[in-house]
Amino acid sequence: MIAILRKNASDEAVSSIVSWIEGKGLTAHVSRGSNETVIGLVGDTTKIDPFLLESMDVVQRVQRVSEPFKKANRKFHPADTVIDFGGGVKIGGGAFQVIAGPCSVEGDNLIKIARRCKSAGATMLRGGAYKPRTSPYAYQGMGERGLDLLLEAKAETGMPIVTEVMDVRDVELFVDRGIDVMQIGARNAQNFNLLKEVGKTSTPVLLKRGIAGTIDELLMAAEYIMSEGNDNVMLCERGIRTFETRTRNTFDLNAVPALHYLTHLPVVADPSHATGYTRYVEPMALAACAAGADALEIEVHDNPAEAWSDGAQALTPDQFDRTMERIRAIRSVVADMAREEA
Amino acid sequence: MIAILRKNASDEAVSSIVSWIEGKGLTAHVSRGSNETVIGLVGDTTKIDPFLLESMDVVQRVQRVSEPFKKANRKFHPADTVIDFGGGVKIGGGAFQVIAGPCSVEGDNLIKIARRCKSAGATMLRGGAYKPRTSPYAYQGMGERGLDLLLEAKAETGMPIVTEVMDVRDVELFVDRGIDVMQIGARNAQNFNLLKEVGKTSTPVLLKRGIAGTIDELLMAAEYIMSEGNDNVMLCERGIRTFETRTRNTFDLNAVPALHYLTHLPVVADPSHATGYTRYVEPMALAACAAGADALEIEVHDNPAEAWSDGAQALTPDQFDRTMERIRAIRSVVADMAREEA
Amino acid sequence: MIAILRKNASDEAVSSIVSWIEGKGLTAHVSRGSNETVIGLVGDTTKIDPFLLESMDVVQRVQRVSEPFKKANRKFHPADTVIDFGGGVKIGGGAFQVIAGPCSVEGDNLIKIARRCKSAGATMLRGGAYKPRTSPYAYQGMGERGLDLLLEAKAETGMPIVTEVMDVRDVELFVDRGIDVMQIGARNAQNFNLLKEVGKTSTPVLLKRGIAGTIDELLMAAEYIMSEGNDNVMLCERGIRTFETRTRNTFDLNAVPALHYLTHLPVVADPSHATGYTRYVEPMALAACAAGADALEIEVHDNPAEAWSDGAQALTPDQFDRTMERIRAIRSVVADMAREEA
Amino acid sequence: MIAILRKNASDEAVSSIVSWIEGKGLTAHVSRGSNETVIGLVGDTTKIDPFLLESMDVVQRVQRVSEPFKKANRKFHPADTVIDFGGGVKIGGGAFQVIAGPCSVEGDNLIKIARRCKSAGATMLRGGAYKPRTSPYAYQGMGERGLDLLLEAKAETGMPIVTEVMDVRDVELFVDRGIDVMQIGARNAQNFNLLKEVGKTSTPVLLKRGIAGTIDELLMAAEYIMSEGNDNVMLCERGIRTFETRTRNTFDLNAVPALHYLTHLPVVADPSHATGYTRYVEPMALAACAAGADALEIEVHDNPAEAWSDGAQALTPDQFDRTMERIRAIRSVVADMAREEA
Repeated sequence: MIAILRKNASDEAVSSIVSWIEGKGLTAHVSRGSNETVIGLVGDTTKIDPFLLESMDVVQRVQRVSEPFKKANRKFHPADTVIDFGGGVKIGGGAFQVIAGPCSVEGDNLIKIARRCKSAGATMLRGGAYKPRTSPYAYQGMGERGLDLLLEAKAETGMPIVTEVMDVRDVELFVDRGIDVMQIGARNAQNFNLLKEVGKTSTPVLLKRGIAGTIDELLMAAEYIMSEGNDNVMLCERGIRTFETRTRNTFDLNAVPALHYLTHLPVVADPSHATGYTRYVEPMALAACAAGADALEIEVHDNPAEAWSDGAQALTPDQFDRTMERIRAIRSVVADMAREEA
Repeated sequence: MIAILRKNASDEAVSSIVSWIEGKGLTAHVSRGSNETVIGLVGDTTKIDPFLLESMDVVQRVQRVSEPFKKANRKFHPADTVIDFGGGVKIGGGAFQVIAGPCSVEGDNLIKIARRCKSAGATMLRGGAYKPRTSPYAYQGMGERGLDLLLEAKAETGMPIVTEVMDVRDVELFVDRGIDVMQIGARNAQNFNLLKEVGKTSTPVLLKRGIAGTIDELLMAAEYIMSEGNDNVMLCERGIRTFETRTRNTFDLNAVPALHYLTHLPVVADPSHATGYTRYVEPMALAACAAGADALEIEVHDNPAEAWSDGAQALTPDQFDRTMERIRAIRSVVADMAREEA
Repeated sequence: MIAILRKNASDEAVSSIVSWIEGKGLTAHVSRGSNETVIGLVGDTTKIDPFLLESMDVVQRVQRVSEPFKKANRKFHPADTVIDFGGGVKIGGGAFQVIAGPCSVEGDNLIKIARRCKSAGATMLRGGAYKPRTSPYAYQGMGERGLDLLLEAKAETGMPIVTEVMDVRDVELFVDRGIDVMQIGARNAQNFNLLKEVGKTSTPVLLKRGIAGTIDELLMAAEYIMSEGNDNVMLCERGIRTFETRTRNTFDLNAVPALHYLTHLPVVADPSHATGYTRYVEPMALAACAAGADALEIEVHDNPAEAWSDGAQALTPDQFDRTMERIRAIRSVVADMAREEA
Repeated sequence: MIAILRKNASDEAVSSIVSWIEGKGLTAHVSRGSNETVIGLVGDTTKIDPFLLESMDVVQRVQRVSEPFKKANRKFHPADTVIDFGGGVKIGGGAFQVIAGPCSVEGDNLIKIARRCKSAGATMLRGGAYKPRTSPYAYQGMGERGLDLLLEAKAETGMPIVTEVMDVRDVELFVDRGIDVMQIGARNAQNFNLLKEVGKTSTPVLLKRGIAGTIDELLMAAEYIMSEGNDNVMLCERGIRTFETRTRNTFDLNAVPALHYLTHLPVVADPSHATGYTRYVEPMALAACAAGADALEIEVHDNPAEAWSDGAQALTPDQFDRTMERIRAIRSVVADMAREEA
């Protein structure tokens, strides 16, 4: 961390700030130029609040030099993290998968949908058993019965399952039941206690970016999970909130290459939530694939008009067949590029 | 809810959509004009997903008529909710309070700060024992020991205490210890399980608006708490995330009169988080008061340079003395206006 | 337009609002249901201010039925607009081009850059002669001398040229000099007098989305140009302003399929401004292509470190060679899809 | 400007960057610490593009030290700018005014409205003769006839007049007619040629913040005007675009004290556009006053239901009477505070 002092900083003010820094257990390297005095802070800068430092009279600007995320940082772990679900299903490091299924687990149609997703080419199954809903009067999910149905679908199709955990008290259950991927939803992206709790397990986590979460906050949320010992984290861009209302969210696909630059963790993209409308899911799935996403998560429902949630953004199995074909075509070009670079 | 159909809607398409609506247990009132066909949906519209309805081919637009918040809605409860903390300390319905104290409970200085806040005119004490921090490496709060210190400060000063609860598993403890107000932080504004859990108690809740939460989402979060039986909810505007970086957040003071229009619940404003800099806290506290806030929450620390969190936005006790004087002057004008209208 | 009245609307209030509507020259169709009273407004609804109507006591909600953009609306002009620059260079209706060149025209290096862009596969040349800069102290462009250089590069390479016009007083000059495409920059996206002025010409216009412009505002800006008689309008997504700071802007690629759905005008995407960093330009160019953009605009500079503006986002000619190869590979997949659908 | 280099920066890389900086005519002060190498750039840093510098391989971060606005900067001009309209009407430096009048000049009712505004206590008259409208089909203003009516109202009431100029070609006319204040609207906040043109006059300018303009962009727009020689600039907060839709804009009142901190120019607040609804104008006018605004601009119309634009946010003359009374009461408290500080 660097503190740039005001031009008129007196020697006294400089010593006072140096003492303050040393009082926090860090070393302060003062460099007085003819124009600017700069203090370099060396040591555990997580103990320094940059806003507080900048609020001091003699300080003009504070600039972080090192990033606050460590375990998630590509600088310290250059190689891509690859998450292996067995049976050849991996995400990251060049391996690409499509996760598909209904928004909510609703009953026996899950197996039917799962079979269609698999035959279209999806390799992982999604479905919500516990649902975070804006309204307390909306459908809240099947709960544990939903997990049963997901596990039956897994037994039948062999697809690893991805499902959201909303409550710290449920994490143990998810682990006991053998859920393959615990999803942390956008509304819980800064529910730090939940992040810590899934961090204590070894189950892979699909971590969604917050409704209006920055890329750095997403990385810091991953850091919460990893700091507890669980390195199996996938980051998911699912659209952010902006002023635009023609689509449900604004799909920030810039985040895909930006995350690849900043972190070694796999990057998943969710064109269903990011657009909100069935008609935009296919082009944006292709765009996410071309941008380099390591996986896509796509909502598929056998009868969107009767879906219990998010029917407006679901693909039918027939639509999904075509979309998967096109994803494969784009993915094949992207994979060629990757091989060329390797 | 109203569905406006496309101009070329066939009789068949209209009957099909009517059947769909009736299948959800509602009644559909079709009104075919020479130019537009409009369907009014009557019944429990919480069963209808407006995005799904709008995604149907024959539908052009869907317009909600009634608001999705019921218990929080001023239409159904015109009189202001007043929350009474005893000893003459009330919030809402014309009663105004200032809640002050440090960001984090840090130790014995809490009592000292509390005394100074009280002598300046604050009537309620805030302080965080459990701290939601962006970084897992930052200070996470004193935990239960922090609650002890808050209760000691209450015993000493008589001020009711406000402190954040972050985890569903802690709610019982907060109730058992007799915490006066459970605060739900901005990052947990859509942690629906936590909202339900505090909703099962009768302890007043200070509910912060989400980092980028809409006014409607804030009201729906209140609705979660109220739908479980706890009507003692205060809503807090604490700044929202926008593109502006000269201040920590953008203080959406429009939300104060907008919330008063939409809901009967008291509206609190937090100029400390909304600005992020000590130098802006006073003018924005005055602005919030002039806009009609029912309470202010202001961070005060005896030594901001050594505060464990948010020192950049803390007032010193001396600064707070002056700010309170000015708040009283503005408040007296606002109270005169209210009397004039009554 | 539909006005939904409050439940308790008296007959008197209804007649009064009907008179008001009729006073504006429209017809009001009242439909009183048991639950809701709805008024359909028929006629020239551009004369009605929906906010004003909604602010009336008896009105609960107002819903536009028809969109305010007419000439740009795909509903009234289902076929794609194709803009033909001669020599086989067309944009729209399945024809795809890449526009490349430096941010600013700087001198003789323009021809050198133009040749490299052409040999890489670009078919149109961009370069700014008049530069909108945030600071009055920054380089403001070469002005008319820049146009000369662009025309020389065109004479040499045969590439149609695209350059920004910032001032109503310059439009005539641009037309006289035979500029192929007048670009309207993001900062002038609602400079309505400039839009009208370019609308009076027949020169194709590349209209950039405003810094924080909505999709609807972009369409209304196109409507300004078209309402003056110039139908040769291309819409350009170039990133919008959000809270995210890791990239220069947030590239709203959802806008590509959304614009294709709403309008017949060609859609261009600019991954250079949308990302701000050279390292993200290629993946986002590919993503834009996969999302269905009709053209890409990409900044190329022979020596980015010495570029007079926007060097941080420029590709070198060598980088551009590789990016063009990859764009062709993705584009070939997208073109196959389009053929399949036709 | 400070460039912080990467840890592994070689001597060669450092010399190369130093040469680059010197090539731009600046001096580079290198300070190599054991942990960080920092280069201080001294000289005319407006010649350096910080994004380009940061994009260089060896550079980790770039931090501006000095702000890019000079003439508008309070650091170099500590005393408040006061704009004097004669007859005791001043804005800035403790002097406070209310500017009131209709959104659009519509005809003879202007004089009637002006008289009522004056009798309520407003001292300046606003009214739009040239109107920037989102739709080309909406009313575009009376043009020069509107200026005539404003000047008649001025002759009658003595109130200086404020009216928007949208076109560089109209600036001369505004000056010739003796318009007291030229308003630059939010949509032209980065129409740099218009800013330069009004900068060449000595007529006071009321500069509105852009639709999604940052505080820094507002200051840079003022800098454009001032760099041409016109120092009579007032900055106007009128609400910014965010995700919130319950109000027309989000009123960023934090900008009032933030601008007072950063600049010596007067700060005006416009609660009419910032809220969009008559019912919120009064509380937010009071809030703006309490936050320290030097002037308010408020829309008043004798018959809002028939206003040609923005009727939903207009106060009637009777409403304005009450609002002015309350503004005076708040203002009197604020003025006392200012005296106390002086």
